[in-house]
Amino acid sequence: MSRVYNFSAGPSMLPEEVLKQAQAEFLDYNGSGMSVCEMSHRSKVYTEINDEAEALLRELMGISDDYHVMFVQGGASTQFEAVPLNLLGKNNKADYCVTGNFANKASKEAQKYADVHIASSSKDANYTFIPKDINVREDAAYVHITNNNTIFGTEYHFVPDTKGVPLVSDMSSDILSRPVNVNDYSVIYAGAQKNIAPAGVTIVIAKKELVDNDNTLPYCPTMLKWSTQAKEHSLYNTPPCFSTYMAMLVFRHIKKLGGVEAMAKYNAEKAAILYDFLDSQDWYKAPVAKEDRSFMNVPFVSPSEELNAKFVKEAAANGLVTLKGHRLVGGMRASIYNAMPIEGVKKLVEFMKKFAAENK
Amino acid sequence: MSRVYNFSAGPSMLPEEVLKQAQAEFLDYNGSGMSVCEMSHRSKVYTEINDEAEALLRELMGISDDYHVMFVQGGASTQFEAVPLNLLGKNNKADYCVTGNFANKASKEAQKYADVHIASSSKDANYTFIPKDINVREDAAYVHITNNNTIFGTEYHFVPDTKGVPLVSDMSSDILSRPVNVNDYSVIYAGAQKNIAPAGVTIVIAKKELVDNDNTLPYCPTMLKWSTQAKEHSLYNTPPCFSTYMAMLVFRHIKKLGGVEAMAKYNAEKAAILYDFLDSQDWYKAPVAKEDRSFMNVPFVSPSEELNAKFVKEAAANGLVTLKGHRLVGGMRASIYNAMPIEGVKKLVEFMKKFAAENK
Repeated sequence: MSRVYNFSAGPSMLPEEVLKQAQAEFLDYNGSGMSVCEMSHRSKVYTEINDEAEALLRELMGISDDYHVMFVQGGASTQFEAVPLNLLGKNNKADYCVTGNFANKASKEAQKYADVHIASSSKDANYTFIPKDINVREDAAYVHITNNNTIFGTEYHFVPDTKGVPLVSDMSSDILSRPVNVNDYSVIYAGAQKNIAPAGVTIVIAKKELVDNDNTLPYCPTMLKWSTQAKEHSLYNTPPCFSTYMAMLVFRHIKKLGGVEAMAKYNAEKAAILYDFLDSQDWYKAPVAKEDRSFMNVPFVSPSEELNAKFVKEAAANGLVTLKGHRLVGGMRASIYNAMPIEGVKKLVEFMKKFAAENK
Repeated sequence: MSRVYNFSAGPSMLPEEVLKQAQAEFLDYNGSGMSVCEMSHRSKVYTEINDEAEALLRELMGISDDYHVMFVQGGASTQFEAVPLNLLGKNNKADYCVTGNFANKASKEAQKYADVHIASSSKDANYTFIPKDINVREDAAYVHITNNNTIFGTEYHFVPDTKGVPLVSDMSSDILSRPVNVNDYSVIYAGAQKNIAPAGVTIVIAKKELVDNDNTLPYCPTMLKWSTQAKEHSLYNTPPCFSTYMAMLVFRHIKKLGGVEAMAKYNAEKAAILYDFLDSQDWYKAPVAKEDRSFMNVPFVSPSEELNAKFVKEAAANGLVTLKGHRLVGGMRASIYNAMPIEGVKKLVEFMKKFAAENK
């Protein structure tokens, strides 16, 4: 077996140690005589997994009892709709900071239900920076941001001033990559498939006071209602058990490595290797404003379309795969989430140097 | 390792051969150097899985090109809402046949959006039979049935006469257990976790003319829109890749065994072993009307609550697990889906005989 360095924007690499454990117990979890894929979600053996996943996430992120933590289905795209459906029952004003493709999608979905106001946008600059000032309506029900913009490679390295309006953040692509102060947010949600687990489970962390006061719109589907999911501890219907189990294993792994502080240090080191190289030369270009660069997704381009295509192909032949950039940006994109080993980043930079030398 | 016979109503046993293959290639699928859990859903290696899963399901069920086939998230419970949201944009009348707990839930969810009429119900008899006649409004947008009632152990062994009104069927607990004529239905949906795959993927089979004519309600969430999912071949957003891959492996396995005809024969044989025994004695009671008995879920009771509890405990100690009945029925329930080996059913009947003899 020859494992590759997979720079996919998502789904993405998982820690090899976690994969090996899941493989070893795939037909018999913890002496139960069955796979996690086969067990009743009402069984003790599974509810222990569900409980441990929640407890570990609370511990890793420092989530207080003021928040519900839910493991749901449907991806962040479903939360694009759940957010307005759950929060706009009494006040239909929603403000959005549009810093990329998914931020834009989230704002578009909300327009079905809400009076949407764009509080900031970097669209005119093809989303190469994060606007520092936001124009919030003080009577808005919430302000929505996308914490890390996977396609464009930008990331909020600050918490925007919302003037007291509840802040909702899509952290799909940087959750658990570094410490955040959860109390700065009213709602955090994240698809699992970048830093946490196989696709299929989505995390929602929401202030109890917002959820329990039932601010839902009358036609909100029950399955999208946070109050339903919270009340039933994510077991209202059959949950995506295997993905939640894998999340639990990844949480244990992160804890063992030293928690989010250790991940932040490791991720900063990896990102620095790539950005320092990019800044040391001018053959490759990196489009993003320096202060807004993502630690998770690093887009860059070579001097031509042909060379970009050649780069992607030759890199793959060298075990560095899924480096093609998104069509909205072009060129290459290296996604270097928690589970990307530093060796992968070093190998990538070596390859970039060699490729540039050969094609100058 | 000692595998058990797991009679769980869902999630349920998977074929051991499939589990072993998934285990073997868990860190390196098909020479890709990565796990299916890690691969981009836009990669060739994954889109081939997605395509093969759809093609095999079409082949196994004989689904014509008149139907869309989708692999979505959220379980059947999400489809309880997706059905009215997708079908009631132009006519808000929906008829429901209430033959159990989930059938009832489906009708309740629809009341949020629809003028709901109960076309039949066996509620007064604690759902121990399937009403043969249904009282359909001829101008209803659709009639909804639950093909197999997991909790109560009843199953439609006929297609009800809907007088031309489109028929929608929740086949979560008997899909692929026997041949069905898909053309008798306008929509079929099913959570995967009983006969197909680990929880997390849901199958929707819907007539193209119903989907493409956009009958959706204006506030239908995009992620619940069948037209969106169909247009993007289930890749509108990141799908539950690992569950879909497991579904593909199970489809291959069923095909190898001889398709749904072979499964029907095998399942009839298994069910007969249990029902023949139940009918041969009167210590255990089986509550369901004979002609409506499910081939998938077999509820039965011993003479007392204490003995029921003792039965479940001693059966588990003998490697026959998750036999506790649902609280709405009490007693025991043996779920014997496709992947339950006939040896498991034989062992269960032997145990039932022994237990009765010891406790008479």
